[in-house]
Amino acid sequence: MNYTFANRMDRLKGSAVRELMALTARPEVISFAGGMPAPELFPIEGVKAAACAVLDEMGQKAMQYAPTEGYIPLREHIVKRMGERLHINTDIDHVLVTSGSQQGLDFAARVFLNPGDVILVESPSYVGALNAFNACEPTYVEVPTDDYGMIPEELERILETTENVKLIYVIPDFQNPSGKTWSMKRREHFMELVNKYEIPVLEDNPYGDLRFEGEYLPSLKSMDTKDLVIFLGTLSKVFCPGLRIGWVCAPAPVLAKFNFVKQGADLQVSSFDQMLAAKFMDMYDLNEHVEKIKAVYRVRRDLMLKTMEETFPEGVTWTVPEGGLFTWVTLPEGVDAGEIAPKLLEQNVAYVPGAAFYPYPGKENHFRMNYSNATEENLVIGVKRIGAVLTDILSK
Amino acid sequence: MNYTFANRMDRLKGSAVRELMALTARPEVISFAGGMPAPELFPIEGVKAAACAVLDEMGQKAMQYAPTEGYIPLREHIVKRMGERLHINTDIDHVLVTSGSQQGLDFAARVFLNPGDVILVESPSYVGALNAFNACEPTYVEVPTDDYGMIPEELERILETTENVKLIYVIPDFQNPSGKTWSMKRREHFMELVNKYEIPVLEDNPYGDLRFEGEYLPSLKSMDTKDLVIFLGTLSKVFCPGLRIGWVCAPAPVLAKFNFVKQGADLQVSSFDQMLAAKFMDMYDLNEHVEKIKAVYRVRRDLMLKTMEETFPEGVTWTVPEGGLFTWVTLPEGVDAGEIAPKLLEQNVAYVPGAAFYPYPGKENHFRMNYSNATEENLVIGVKRIGAVLTDILSK
Repeated sequence: MNYTFANRMDRLKGSAVRELMALTARPEVISFAGGMPAPELFPIEGVKAAACAVLDEMGQKAMQYAPTEGYIPLREHIVKRMGERLHINTDIDHVLVTSGSQQGLDFAARVFLNPGDVILVESPSYVGALNAFNACEPTYVEVPTDDYGMIPEELERILETTENVKLIYVIPDFQNPSGKTWSMKRREHFMELVNKYEIPVLEDNPYGDLRFEGEYLPSLKSMDTKDLVIFLGTLSKVFCPGLRIGWVCAPAPVLAKFNFVKQGADLQVSSFDQMLAAKFMDMYDLNEHVEKIKAVYRVRRDLMLKTMEETFPEGVTWTVPEGGLFTWVTLPEGVDAGEIAPKLLEQNVAYVPGAAFYPYPGKENHFRMNYSNATEENLVIGVKRIGAVLTDILSK
Repeated sequence: MNYTFANRMDRLKGSAVRELMALTARPEVISFAGGMPAPELFPIEGVKAAACAVLDEMGQKAMQYAPTEGYIPLREHIVKRMGERLHINTDIDHVLVTSGSQQGLDFAARVFLNPGDVILVESPSYVGALNAFNACEPTYVEVPTDDYGMIPEELERILETTENVKLIYVIPDFQNPSGKTWSMKRREHFMELVNKYEIPVLEDNPYGDLRFEGEYLPSLKSMDTKDLVIFLGTLSKVFCPGLRIGWVCAPAPVLAKFNFVKQGADLQVSSFDQMLAAKFMDMYDLNEHVEKIKAVYRVRRDLMLKTMEETFPEGVTWTVPEGGLFTWVTLPEGVDAGEIAPKLLEQNVAYVPGAAFYPYPGKENHFRMNYSNATEENLVIGVKRIGAVLTDILSK
């Protein structure tokens, strides 16, 4: 059979990260490729207690269909957390529970983008977001970024000269893949510009809670005076990604569209998983758990950066993230991180080559390193292996 | 703010069934509107035992990210069930786990349909499927159906004279909403025609296991010799819909496309829910549970049909389903079931007006009745209330 697929399928291929997951599933591989939390920190006993409580107290409800919007007590917890941690003043009517924040990315594209419409993204940007957006066949314009975020002058130049800009996608806190965080000044300047041009903003904040040092900065959503910011949150990095619980917080007319898409897409998020997460937050202090995660990840970040410092050759640089899960490594111009990856796999170690984080080819001298998943021992072994291979290659 | 949404959003509105769910959530309402299983049959104790076993034995894995394809032991159970119950001979490499079969409907549209492409559907067809397909802006052609399924002569006429037919969507077993089941002869004739015209078929089979009487008939997928049939299955009607577990079984090149869409859409189905469902099927005999469900639904179907017979006025007819969850009621020409619905809600009883099950307006004299969800007592009370209102209206 020769199948005729829809045009959008020409733009879709397997995600680089997801394909690496298959390769790196072998237990002997030390993988810095995924964005996976440390499994030993998952509060399994607490999850079990919450699961049993949900099934004992309201088992029938947990196994039944439920409204698309999401479980009310979970949305109440989400609203409370957004208020406390992010200074976002909202209510449950502005929150839709999604299957991870990945689903929020997919829905945002479907709500706003016709084929050919322009979406602005940081450069680099999250590969999974590009993958989701691709299904709506957009045109990307990469906004140049430096250590403090999108460069306002560049953004304004683009907004002034580009037609059909329908959405700006940003990760201001501990960006994936760069690990960088936008400064306060840049946030303010950014909001001035989007207010002036009235372009909807998709603010993705999966890592914001995981700050190891420095001050928490206000989310763009909390600074939004014109109902322009659509905020994506998730429990994946502060609780358990296997439960697939994320959310969209958006102005009412926008959230209504997300809800319609959700109805057609999969009706609702698992009733059981939603109730389990809400019950866990009733029974335990999630912030206490987040503090534990932060303490461990901080040690791992320090260890990774120190080992890179000790073993990576001259000419290789990397970012120093104040939180989150990733550092972004830059090789000398002309060196292709994608060509090195197979050599590393032979040594049972993996990163994600950076090219996947750009919508268009041409920037191959980067790779992303995750420090949350590997144990400290493996982390040092793995980084040393990469250091040895890089030293070997760059000395030639 | 005036938002500019993508064109596809013009086609999306709230699902009639989902909106009724909000109205009918009041405990005093007896609702025949949803397609909800009987909650008192959910095997809560078994679910709890399985949940505890998963968390005790492999809690970290259950809370972590997992491959997009789905949990292998669950896919093995699915393959085994498809073999035993549906005579589908396949393997786990041809199965992708989805968030309910609703997600399979959404993905099928995204994989195959450009705006304006033609999809053939039964007339009437499942409202949730139309809702999912709408996001890809197709043109519908309704294939006339009678008591035995799509009418082959009509189908052939349409296939011969219609350009850009990309997909045929069918529910051959206990169709939603009609409750009808295709005869063996019609299945054979249908497969001859799709083989001749080589059009991919989306076979949706959420209710096939729930046959109360008569012979199980082979699925179209089991009769497929040209890799044309994409099969959608689900645990929602035989286990627990709150867990959102469905699957796609498709030829390899098609399944690869579904996988790419899944990666961008939401990465994966809940690891915990998948492992829980697989563990439940390890620990218990799901077929035994299905037998219990069938016994109860059969009684309820009989009771609904009998009460309709006793209380519905002359000129009203309905289908006699051999299984599944629904019967389809036809009012005299010119009577609008949608106009009667608010009067019924005043009496605390609800059905789904039939217009939602057609892609285009013009057929308002039907409604769908679900008999799986209400208790026997409520079922009789509710049907009598509808009978009284119909008698009142039709006598005027």
